[in-house]
Amino acid sequence: MIRIGVDVGGMTTKAGCVDEKGTIFGKVSCDSNPKRGYEALIKDIAELARESVSKSGLAMSDITSVGVGIPGIEDAARGIVPFCTNLYWHEVPLRGMLSRMLEKDVYVGNDATVAALAEHKVGASAGANSSVLVTLGTGVGGGVIIDGKPFTGAHGVATEIGHTIIKFDGIECSCGNRGCWECYASARALISFGRDAAREHPQCMIAKSVNDIDEISAKTVIDCAKAEDPVAVKLFDDYAFYVAVGLVNLINTYDPDVILLGGGVSHAGEFLLEAVKEKLAPLIFFKNMKWAELMLATLGNDAGIIGASMLEA
Amino acid sequence: MIRIGVDVGGMTTKAGCVDEKGTIFGKVSCDSNPKRGYEALIKDIAELARESVSKSGLAMSDITSVGVGIPGIEDAARGIVPFCTNLYWHEVPLRGMLSRMLEKDVYVGNDATVAALAEHKVGASAGANSSVLVTLGTGVGGGVIIDGKPFTGAHGVATEIGHTIIKFDGIECSCGNRGCWECYASARALISFGRDAAREHPQCMIAKSVNDIDEISAKTVIDCAKAEDPVAVKLFDDYAFYVAVGLVNLINTYDPDVILLGGGVSHAGEFLLEAVKEKLAPLIFFKNMKWAELMLATLGNDAGIIGASMLEA
Repeated sequence: MIRIGVDVGGMTTKAGCVDEKGTIFGKVSCDSNPKRGYEALIKDIAELARESVSKSGLAMSDITSVGVGIPGIEDAARGIVPFCTNLYWHEVPLRGMLSRMLEKDVYVGNDATVAALAEHKVGASAGANSSVLVTLGTGVGGGVIIDGKPFTGAHGVATEIGHTIIKFDGIECSCGNRGCWECYASARALISFGRDAAREHPQCMIAKSVNDIDEISAKTVIDCAKAEDPVAVKLFDDYAFYVAVGLVNLINTYDPDVILLGGGVSHAGEFLLEAVKEKLAPLIFFKNMKWAELMLATLGNDAGIIGASMLEA
Repeated sequence: MIRIGVDVGGMTTKAGCVDEKGTIFGKVSCDSNPKRGYEALIKDIAELARESVSKSGLAMSDITSVGVGIPGIEDAARGIVPFCTNLYWHEVPLRGMLSRMLEKDVYVGNDATVAALAEHKVGASAGANSSVLVTLGTGVGGGVIIDGKPFTGAHGVATEIGHTIIKFDGIECSCGNRGCWECYASARALISFGRDAAREHPQCMIAKSVNDIDEISAKTVIDCAKAEDPVAVKLFDDYAFYVAVGLVNLINTYDPDVILLGGGVSHAGEFLLEAVKEKLAPLIFFKNMKWAELMLATLGNDAGIIGASMLEA
C-alpha cells in the first residue's frame, strides 16, 4: 500500500510516496509562498503529489490516499481549516479541494500530530501503546498518540502543550499569556537565555565564541555547556529543568508509555536527554511506579511526510 | 441491572446498591479505621456490601458486579493496589480478596476517576464524549473521561492534575515539588491565603468575621468576597485566576467537551463558576474556536458510590 504524504510548512511544502514501513519515494518540494492565497498553494500541493508519483515510477492508481500535515488544525466535522496563522489561511476547504483535484481520499492533520504518528508507527516509539512527541524547536509543539491513534481532543485543539503554563507570572508569551512552557523550553528561549548570559558575563565562553551576541544560537549554548563553561553549564541546567517541568505536567495528565524529544534542540542528543532525565526523576509524583520512558525522536524532518501519509479516517 | 458501589475514604467507607440510572439503594457506611490493616478493612467492605444488599431488599444473586473507589490507584495488570497513602496500604490484593469473599467480579478505580465516571454517566456531564472532573477539595484531584471511558494512562498514574506545576518556583507542595496547582487552587490554599490576608489586614472582613484566625475557612473567604469586602474580593479574584490557569492547561492537553468543578470549594456555586469563567476566557489559546464548557458537578458525595458501581472491565 502506497500513500502520499504532504508536509505543508510556512516556507516549504514537501511531498513523497510512502510505503507501510515509512520509506519515502520520490520526495519533491516547492516554496509554499503562502501570501499568494490558498487556491494557488493547494494547486501546487496537487502538482507535487502527481510529481512525486511519477518520480517514484508509479501511477496515481497505485495510491491509496493522500495525507496532509499543516501547521494548524482542521475542523474535522466540517472538513475546513478554520485558520492557520503561518499560511495566512482562514476557513480553507483543503480536504474537499485537494480530494477533487486528485480524485483520492484526503486526510488532514496537525504537523506535530502527524510527526508523532510517524514516530509511533515506524520511529522511536514504535510498539508503544501511547506516546507524546515534544518538539523543542522555534516554539514547543507536541503530538499525542493514545491507543495507537492521534489524540486531538473534542474540538481539535488538544495537545497545545507548548502553551501549558509552567509559571503563571513568568515570561510574556506571544500568545498573550505569561509563563507558557515554550517561553522556557523552546530553542528561541535557549537562545534568548544565552544572549542574556553573554551580556551579563562578557568573559564567558558563550560570549567569546561569537563576534556578535546576535550570532549566539542554541548550538552555541549547548557546545559551551558540553565544553563545561560554568555559565553555559548553569544555563543549560536551568533549561533542562524547564523542559522537565513541562514533561512532568504531561506525565501527570497523559501518563504515556513513551515521551520523545524532537525539534532543533534535540540535535544535542544524549547530552540533552541525560540532563532532562536527571531533572525529571525528582519531579515525578509516583516515584515508585514506572513512568514514561524518555527518548529521542529518530525520524527528523521526514516525520512530517511519513506521518501525513499514515493519516486515516 | 443492580451493582454495588463502594467508596473507601481515609475516614469513612460507604457502600450502596446502584441501578443504571445512578439511584442508590441501601446506603450504608462504617469507619475505615485503616490503621488496623487491610484485611480487616476489606472484610468490612464485604460486610457493608452484603448489608447494603439486604437493606435494599435484594439478594446477592441480584448483583452483577462490585466496584470500589479508593484514594489511590490499582495496578490493573496485577490486580494489586501498589500503595494507598491514606489507607496505609502497600501491595494490597484488594480485587482478588474481595472477589473471593463476595463471589462477584470486582473492579477497582481511583476515587476521583469514579466520581468523574458518575458525573459522565448520570450527572452534569452526561451526554458529553469527554469530560474532566476537577475536585477543589483539601487537595485538587481529577478524573478524566475520554470517549466515554475512564482514562488512566499507561501506568495508571494519569490525571494527577493537582500536581501539574503552574509556577515552578512557587509555593512548596507536600509532594516535594514547588508550585503544584493544588498549592494555589485547593480549599487548603484558599484558607491559607485567607489567613495570611487576615493577618496582614486585621481590619478586613475576613479577620473581623472570626474570633481566631485559625477559624477562617474557605467559606469565610467566599462569604466575605460575596459581601464585597475589598481584601476578600482581591483574594478570591486571584484564587479564580489560579483555578483558571490549571484549567487552561487541561484544555491545552485534553481539550475535553466539558470540565466540571466539584469538591468543597465548588459549594460556592455560580459565584465560583462565573469568577473562573471570566479568568479562563483570556487564557484560551484558540479564542475563536469552541472550548470546554465549564460547569458545576452535581452528584456531590454520592458520586463516589455511583461511579464505583459503574466500573467495568
